[in-house]
Amino acid sequence: MALELCVLGCGSATPTTRFNPTAQLLEIRNHYFLIDCGENTQVELRRRRLRFSKINHIFISHLHGDHYFGLIGLLSSFHLLDRTQPLHIHGPADLQEIIALQLRVSQTKLRFPLHFHHTQDNGPAVVFEDDKVVVTSFPLKHSIATTGFLFQEKLADRKINSDNVRAFQVPIYALNGLKKGRDYEDEQGNIIPNAELTLPPPPPLSYAFCSDTAYSEKNTELLAGVNLLYHESTFLEVDQALAKKTKHSTSTDAARFAKKINAQHLLIGHYSVRYDDLQLFEKEAKTIFENTKSARDGHTYHLDNNKQLTVKVPTR
Amino acid sequence: MALELCVLGCGSATPTTRFNPTAQLLEIRNHYFLIDCGENTQVELRRRRLRFSKINHIFISHLHGDHYFGLIGLLSSFHLLDRTQPLHIHGPADLQEIIALQLRVSQTKLRFPLHFHHTQDNGPAVVFEDDKVVVTSFPLKHSIATTGFLFQEKLADRKINSDNVRAFQVPIYALNGLKKGRDYEDEQGNIIPNAELTLPPPPPLSYAFCSDTAYSEKNTELLAGVNLLYHESTFLEVDQALAKKTKHSTSTDAARFAKKINAQHLLIGHYSVRYDDLQLFEKEAKTIFENTKSARDGHTYHLDNNKQLTVKVPTR
Repeated sequence: MALELCVLGCGSATPTTRFNPTAQLLEIRNHYFLIDCGENTQVELRRRRLRFSKINHIFISHLHGDHYFGLIGLLSSFHLLDRTQPLHIHGPADLQEIIALQLRVSQTKLRFPLHFHHTQDNGPAVVFEDDKVVVTSFPLKHSIATTGFLFQEKLADRKINSDNVRAFQVPIYALNGLKKGRDYEDEQGNIIPNAELTLPPPPPLSYAFCSDTAYSEKNTELLAGVNLLYHESTFLEVDQALAKKTKHSTSTDAARFAKKINAQHLLIGHYSVRYDDLQLFEKEAKTIFENTKSARDGHTYHLDNNKQLTVKVPTR
Repeated sequence: MALELCVLGCGSATPTTRFNPTAQLLEIRNHYFLIDCGENTQVELRRRRLRFSKINHIFISHLHGDHYFGLIGLLSSFHLLDRTQPLHIHGPADLQEIIALQLRVSQTKLRFPLHFHHTQDNGPAVVFEDDKVVVTSFPLKHSIATTGFLFQEKLADRKINSDNVRAFQVPIYALNGLKKGRDYEDEQGNIIPNAELTLPPPPPLSYAFCSDTAYSEKNTELLAGVNLLYHESTFLEVDQALAKKTKHSTSTDAARFAKKINAQHLLIGHYSVRYDDLQLFEKEAKTIFENTKSARDGHTYHLDNNKQLTVKVPTR
């Protein structure tokens, strides 16, 4: 098991030639989850050669334009490219009205089923779950209703210990039971404990997306020990008055929160355009939380089984 | 007098890394008119170093996404960049509802006055006029209500013939009258005809934007003799059945129309992504209308006083 996060946009507020607005593609257990969808996300997905037809779930944090203005364009392109598989959008209720209105005026009847799931900002709620992954929304502290999202792998099946399975002559039909943790009883009635025939699965990984938000401790318990935390860091601490006024975070806020929840890795982003030197963000955060990386457009963050985070930099 | 048209997007339907969706910036008599505003137009304006704060009028042809999905982002950025001067949007009535809804859900009260002017597709109508320019909308033939726009310079003031004005000792106070075409009467009551004291102004120029549309002769009279015609050319003639079905034009249609209205120059664009070789469009059109150029993203088309069209290619 591993998870991979491609940051399509690390900027805030107004898109520029320097930064795209917020969008991330999370690959986790064969799911391709799109998180936020700022203007031009569909072109960035193409530029990064990410197969966007595989996206079946889109999570929208809130209705500031830099987090969703690219959604209607992506949906239109799915339609024009003859998508047929269902698409699920998890976001604020008003988003449904916006999309419906824009489809109506262009007389577009989508060729694929579109399902809206309205998020609530009054407490954590499971918004998606299957046998591999569970996704929980949780309220953030911003100027309009905003939710973060926690993506958690479920504990995988135990791995078959092939050598021992062969030695004990376990028949094939019993293997599924072993994977689920059952012991094996042979034809003579001998019980062979599961632990002798299998290996433990890798520990499940988790990723939390917190943007946009001021520093807030209301999700401390839910997010405790998360493996990878993305926390917005619009400002440097020198501009903390601005952060307070606009309900955003500084790099210091992000690092304090990562420390508070005992995260393993912190990724910061959503930079204000006012700063020329982005390295200052990482430098500031690291004084509080060493395992910090600052996000860049197009960079991919790979978290492996051993909870090591590596960065893949695009070649162009 | 001269006019300059920067094509920000020459693609159709779905934006790709190859083409932007439709948007053009027309500079005419110190006006910066934005025509259509596909997704990511604001970033293209920045990339081309066009001063988008100078745009006071935006003309939207119709409500297919590739012609307007970038508008809400541009308005948001104007707001965030503290614009205060009024902005006028000329487009279908539904556009106002779309913008209003998106501003409402983000609790945005724009810092500048935004005026909507609803276009009608039942006949030509003047949608903007001042002492230098008149803009007329006219119905096109597409799958939803769509209008083109005709931009016409007004005849400028006559130019002062400095040598003769000096020779006849015309006082300064009389110069404005001369520019307007009046004769000059000196203190002795002698009439000096205007033609002796002034030179004729350059002939006014005109630009017509026709996208999206099937071939249609309903605007033949209005557009007769236009200096520069932009006519969509989504398909090549080999795909005329597709053009008919989707109410778009082929390169041949565009050229036939340019010939029909006796245009001076034809610019084609709005290419379908299905074609690899864009040169085929220009080649096809030129068999019918020699003065054809095919638009490219970022290229600027400069029409001078002598009605010569030159192309400026971006350096990057």
